[in-house]
Amino acid sequence: MNKKDNTNKLLKKDKKILLSHGDGGLKTSELINDLIIKYLGNDILNKLEDSSVINIEGKKIAYTTDSFTVKPLFFRGGDIGKLSVCGTINDLVCSGAIPIALSLGLIIEEGFEIESLEKIIKSISKTSKNVNVPIITGDTKVVEKNSIDKLFINTSGIGIVDDNIEITPRKIKPKDKVIINGTIAEHGIAVLTSRDEFNFKTNIKSDCAPLLSLVNNILSVSKNIHAIRDATRGGIASVLNEFADIAKIKIEINEENIPIRKQTLAVCEFLGLDPLYIANEGKILIFVSPEDSEKVLESMKSHKYGKKSEIIGEVKEHSERGIVILNTKIGTKRIIDSFYSEQFPRIC
Amino acid sequence: MNKKDNTNKLLKKDKKILLSHGDGGLKTSELINDLIIKYLGNDILNKLEDSSVINIEGKKIAYTTDSFTVKPLFFRGGDIGKLSVCGTINDLVCSGAIPIALSLGLIIEEGFEIESLEKIIKSISKTSKNVNVPIITGDTKVVEKNSIDKLFINTSGIGIVDDNIEITPRKIKPKDKVIINGTIAEHGIAVLTSRDEFNFKTNIKSDCAPLLSLVNNILSVSKNIHAIRDATRGGIASVLNEFADIAKIKIEINEENIPIRKQTLAVCEFLGLDPLYIANEGKILIFVSPEDSEKVLESMKSHKYGKKSEIIGEVKEHSERGIVILNTKIGTKRIIDSFYSEQFPRIC
Repeated sequence: MNKKDNTNKLLKKDKKILLSHGDGGLKTSELINDLIIKYLGNDILNKLEDSSVINIEGKKIAYTTDSFTVKPLFFRGGDIGKLSVCGTINDLVCSGAIPIALSLGLIIEEGFEIESLEKIIKSISKTSKNVNVPIITGDTKVVEKNSIDKLFINTSGIGIVDDNIEITPRKIKPKDKVIINGTIAEHGIAVLTSRDEFNFKTNIKSDCAPLLSLVNNILSVSKNIHAIRDATRGGIASVLNEFADIAKIKIEINEENIPIRKQTLAVCEFLGLDPLYIANEGKILIFVSPEDSEKVLESMKSHKYGKKSEIIGEVKEHSERGIVILNTKIGTKRIIDSFYSEQFPRIC
Repeated sequence: MNKKDNTNKLLKKDKKILLSHGDGGLKTSELINDLIIKYLGNDILNKLEDSSVINIEGKKIAYTTDSFTVKPLFFRGGDIGKLSVCGTINDLVCSGAIPIALSLGLIIEEGFEIESLEKIIKSISKTSKNVNVPIITGDTKVVEKNSIDKLFINTSGIGIVDDNIEITPRKIKPKDKVIINGTIAEHGIAVLTSRDEFNFKTNIKSDCAPLLSLVNNILSVSKNIHAIRDATRGGIASVLNEFADIAKIKIEINEENIPIRKQTLAVCEFLGLDPLYIANEGKILIFVSPEDSEKVLESMKSHKYGKKSEIIGEVKEHSERGIVILNTKIGTKRIIDSFYSEQFPRIC
């Protein structure tokens, strides 16, 4: 089916925007391909990387944007302020960039408590100062009561990419190892169970963290890092599928090697959720040549945000249609699909 | 009163966010100074310019962000898509930058018509292609019905500033001439009268336009352009006051020289609105040395977005407290204050 057919299909089938058009899954891809890329497409945008890298007078500049609509605004392990800084920092570092500056766009509902806003701004300040990436431009809009649910934040970011660094899923090769920097699915579960409508409590905290120094460390240890991606909306399943599609490869991961806390797994089982598809905000997947995988793993384990790092799988042969296989604990193989629709909206 | 006093005052007096905290007036300044600058402040952000200029490895890079919440999404002369590209382009060019790339963040309400979204994306595409500034990175979020009023857009932008160019209100000097590129108050009136609750119709169209080539032209004609600013929220009164405050000067403008269409004036009088405070989206104020003012004016008049350009006033003596005086048509003098609160929200 060509692109034109797709557009017609999208416009015919869905006359209205659905929640799934924004969940990072298949419907989102449809919307992006059939509206955004169709009308706004160019060589850079079409790559659909988390950060775009452009050449400005001989310098490689990375550029990214992200809007945050997380609900509730405050959750165990973070808040929308911390999230909006970490999210954009992580998008930049996953393309091998050193973040230089952030922008901050606030849209606030009339009647929002100034005390809550102050907490959120303090949190932005703390996170931005911790990684030494200043906010240098901003915008504040206030809209009438009921025109927005409390507060949404957009952050964009710019960074510099060293001439010798090229981090992109296009470089992934058979035999590359897949490494993760710790336990999965905590952000999504923390946000979900922080909502009022959930009447049970857990101690699971969001893993929300800026991964600037972790990525710096691994880039200094190995010249054979091929791709890095933060596993946010759609969880690690989504990143693995995206990379498998782009690089036209088969990836196998081993369930027994995927770090997950017992409590997270218990909540997922109780709610009928698959942790592979649950959002993280401080977890990245790294694809690295096998010969460097052990030293990269060691470097990650020595970092505070990588103590529970594990090699969770490897790239197998080329495959025209990207494919992701999970080797389960009970010895079977399961295909991990691109998820069709996220289990819940407004997780980031 | 020092900053600390101000903070206490803000937090004591207003426990909740008011519409006026986002209208670009005095309350907005309070919020920005007492929360944003207090916690996030740094040498660049504190300048509060429309674009921040930073030095990245020897290149001057301009960076800006803006969120758009205009209501209705479609109005005479434009729509939120065109507006979100023009607004960010204009913020960049007003700091003397050549825009290089834009980011696009969409937050969409569940149930929004895909046909309307397509129109808006087409409009973004057309405007961005007209000025040859591509969108290179983006993000799409969908939130549940009633969590947002249809669609909000954030655009950020980056540009390059030539080493020899420094455009900032800090450079304004006594005797500088003040030039505007055409008739005022059209965007605000067009948006307001496009709303359903207004039961009279006008033909006034938004002046929404990207001013990249207009500004390029004047910068090539004169090396003595001191400051440029697009007169959006708060109208030309707001820009004049901001510049008077920053440069510590007195500015006098002449009512008879300020271009305004008869119909705009009639609607303003009917509604009891002062056109000096009404938003524009394609009008800039230029402060230039008197010896270059005529050739700059001529260059502007030869541009499609500057046909009705006029010299509307000049900078008088230094004044510790910035002051703006209007010489009225009837021969009196009137102080043009910083406006306290915009007459209506969601104009951009």
